[in-house]
Amino acid sequence: MQRAAELALQKMRENSGGPFGAIIVREGKVVAEGWNQVTSGNNPTAHAEIVAIRNACASLKSFSLEGCEICTSCEPCPMCLGAICWARLECLYYTNSRQDAARIGFDDEFIYAEITLPLDGRKISAVRIASESANLAFSEWASSPNKIRY
Amino acid sequence: MQRAAELALQKMRENSGGPFGAIIVREGKVVAEGWNQVTSGNNPTAHAEIVAIRNACASLKSFSLEGCEICTSCEPCPMCLGAICWARLECLYYTNSRQDAARIGFDDEFIYAEITLPLDGRKISAVRIASESANLAFSEWASSPNKIRY
Repeated sequence: MQRAAELALQKMRENSGGPFGAIIVREGKVVAEGWNQVTSGNNPTAHAEIVAIRNACASLKSFSLEGCEICTSCEPCPMCLGAICWARLECLYYTNSRQDAARIGFDDEFIYAEITLPLDGRKISAVRIASESANLAFSEWASSPNKIRY
Repeated sequence: MQRAAELALQKMRENSGGPFGAIIVREGKVVAEGWNQVTSGNNPTAHAEIVAIRNACASLKSFSLEGCEICTSCEPCPMCLGAICWARLECLYYTNSRQDAARIGFDDEFIYAEITLPLDGRKISAVRIASESANLAFSEWASSPNKIRY
C-alpha cells in the first residue's frame, strides 16, 4: 500500500493527473504500477487502477489477473470496480474512501446513481436502434466453436 | 449505428475479441472507432466503448468528449458506463441489450450487484489500510492552485 500511496503523491506533484496510485501484486511481489494520467494523457479512462491492470496484463501476457490483488490509494470508482471484476482480481486494499474523494472534488456518486437506474431514467439518454449486423455478431459468437471466452 | 455493428461483426470474425463495436460521433461525423480487443490485446479493459473513447480523446487531444455521442453495438457494462460518464459523453445509442449479452455468455449482472453493495458485503473483499502519503496526496490536491480538474 505504501508504494501505491507514494505513486499517488509523486505523480500528482509531477502533474500527471489526479492524486491516485495503484499497484498489482501476485504472491507478495509487485507485478505492475499505475497512476492517474487522465489530464496528462488526454485519457478519461486512465485511472490508476485501469493503468495498473493494463500494465499487469501486458507484463503477464494474460487478460486475466486471477490470483492477483490490487492496492489502490483510493476506493475504486464504478469504472475501475468494473475493470477489477473483468480482470478477475480477487481482493482490493485501499486507503482513501469515496467520501474522501468526493470532498476534494471527485464525486462519482453520479455514476453510482446512473448505473442503478433503468436506461430510460438516466441523465445520459440511451436510445435503442435495431441493427442486423449487431444481432448477427451475437448469434455467430454464440455458435462459434473457436471463441476465446473471457 | 451501422458502422458500430459492422465493427462488432468484422472484428469478431478476425478474432480480435468479443462481438462488440463502438464509434464516437461529433456533429454527425465519426471521430473514432473501437472494437473489443480483450483477448487479442491481453487487456480486460479493452471493451469497444473504452477503446473508442481513448481513440476519440487522442484524436481530439482532449480528456473530455463533451458534445459527442457514442454508438455501441451493445448496452455498455458498468465499466464502460463509468467511462462514458467520465468522458462527459451526453447520449448513447445501442442495439443489443445487457440481457442479450448475458444470453451469449457476457453476464455483467455480477458487476451491477457488486457496485450497489457496501464494500464489506461484496464478493471482492475490500480492506482499508491507513497511509499518510495517500492522505497527503488528497490534501495537497485540495489546496493546489494549479491543478487541472476533470
